[in-house]
Amino acid sequence: MRIALGVTYRGTAYQGWQSQPGGRTVQDHLESALSRFAGQGVRTLCAGRTDTGVHGLNQVVHFDTDLDRAPFSWVRGPNTFLPADIAVQWCQPVPDHFHARNSALGRRYRYILREAAVRPALESGFAGWVFRPLDGDAMRAAAAHLIGEHDFSAFRSSECQAKSPVKTLRTLAITRHGTYWCFEFEASAFLHHMVRNLMGCLIAVGTGQQAPGWVAEVLASRDRRVAAPTFAPDGLYFVGPRYDVAFGLPETVPGADWLP
Amino acid sequence: MRIALGVTYRGTAYQGWQSQPGGRTVQDHLESALSRFAGQGVRTLCAGRTDTGVHGLNQVVHFDTDLDRAPFSWVRGPNTFLPADIAVQWCQPVPDHFHARNSALGRRYRYILREAAVRPALESGFAGWVFRPLDGDAMRAAAAHLIGEHDFSAFRSSECQAKSPVKTLRTLAITRHGTYWCFEFEASAFLHHMVRNLMGCLIAVGTGQQAPGWVAEVLASRDRRVAAPTFAPDGLYFVGPRYDVAFGLPETVPGADWLP
Repeated sequence: MRIALGVTYRGTAYQGWQSQPGGRTVQDHLESALSRFAGQGVRTLCAGRTDTGVHGLNQVVHFDTDLDRAPFSWVRGPNTFLPADIAVQWCQPVPDHFHARNSALGRRYRYILREAAVRPALESGFAGWVFRPLDGDAMRAAAAHLIGEHDFSAFRSSECQAKSPVKTLRTLAITRHGTYWCFEFEASAFLHHMVRNLMGCLIAVGTGQQAPGWVAEVLASRDRRVAAPTFAPDGLYFVGPRYDVAFGLPETVPGADWLP
Repeated sequence: MRIALGVTYRGTAYQGWQSQPGGRTVQDHLESALSRFAGQGVRTLCAGRTDTGVHGLNQVVHFDTDLDRAPFSWVRGPNTFLPADIAVQWCQPVPDHFHARNSALGRRYRYILREAAVRPALESGFAGWVFRPLDGDAMRAAAAHLIGEHDFSAFRSSECQAKSPVKTLRTLAITRHGTYWCFEFEASAFLHHMVRNLMGCLIAVGTGQQAPGWVAEVLASRDRRVAAPTFAPDGLYFVGPRYDVAFGLPETVPGADWLP
């Protein structure tokens, strides 16, 4: 049978999601915990790989097993073997044609940015930081140029393994909450470093270094060298994938609601 | 001249506020950074010492110096020498009779508690956790017994150095925000472990293990052995002291508003 799990993690201490020989990734810890609980090797496949320092709110994985356990035991059991900053949130049996990556209709990311004269301390690693005041209207005008289906090569890292640079950006909502800005992204899929590269450009517009229309020029150039530097991973959250509602999988988890 | 500073820190990595021979405390890091910036030894005195794992939002310290620097340079300068999870937030010259501890008219603490079937991951260290549902009305009824001037010996750790166990608890407000509970405490001063011991008892009432009136019995007993176990430090924040408004010191800092 095929099982889907929702996983929340703080990315600060890990070298990203994807399993590596050193074993210091979220996937390594998760598979180790699942294997200990199952008493047999468990390999997982995820909805969206995250980089070093990037957090996951509702990362979804699937795996196949012939063990017949109550779904919540796949939550409680592995959690006793996981570090404090990784936890399985939910478990649900899924049909065999469900695939955590290929079935995803969309993915959501969030960036939390602190605008203040002083750098973050309490929330270091959980929020990016700008000390210059940001112009929300200018950033929203810039964002409007990015919505839709585009070749996002200008915002793609040289290490990106995606087959095509053409993606559909469905949402880029920018809201302010006290000293924090919240950027919500939803797209069919994201290229490597795409959100952090978009953030660099939006902040260049927000601080007045560039006009909103400059973002359209960067997009049209398809040239990474034209865009702003990749912004810090600190405030970046993989909110999670969206699937056909027929699968009935949770799209949010407790823990997301503590953010602005 | 006497200088007051507001300091924010994440307590997770430190052995509390108070300077120790090993040097792994917030005070040690702060004084080291201030001394490097000043080019001379700087010793500070704080409004309220915090324990291992407890966070500070607006901890206030004072020190004396004969250096004549612009106030904001006492923020920016030391911050370049401080770890990412400690930052000076503001600086203000104060009259010589100001004393960070003795001038404080009150102190505020906040406890953030997650109520969910699954333990925190993203916010581990930033929120306590209960998996049983909590009854807010029962906890508020219990809290009402604690308001006012009382001998809080039943909630005092054996290591407490306070001269008197009699303190005035002015506020104990309990609110719910999604899966989080927020407990706001304000008192003339707090005994060692007082908030964590009160939290243990409030949770015993909230989960139905004890009736609200039991808290009044515990208080009247003045006996620590009667109360519930000391609750985890993870979700505990020293919000900061209150002073006579004539001193004109900030009572809140950016960074507090990301919490529920």
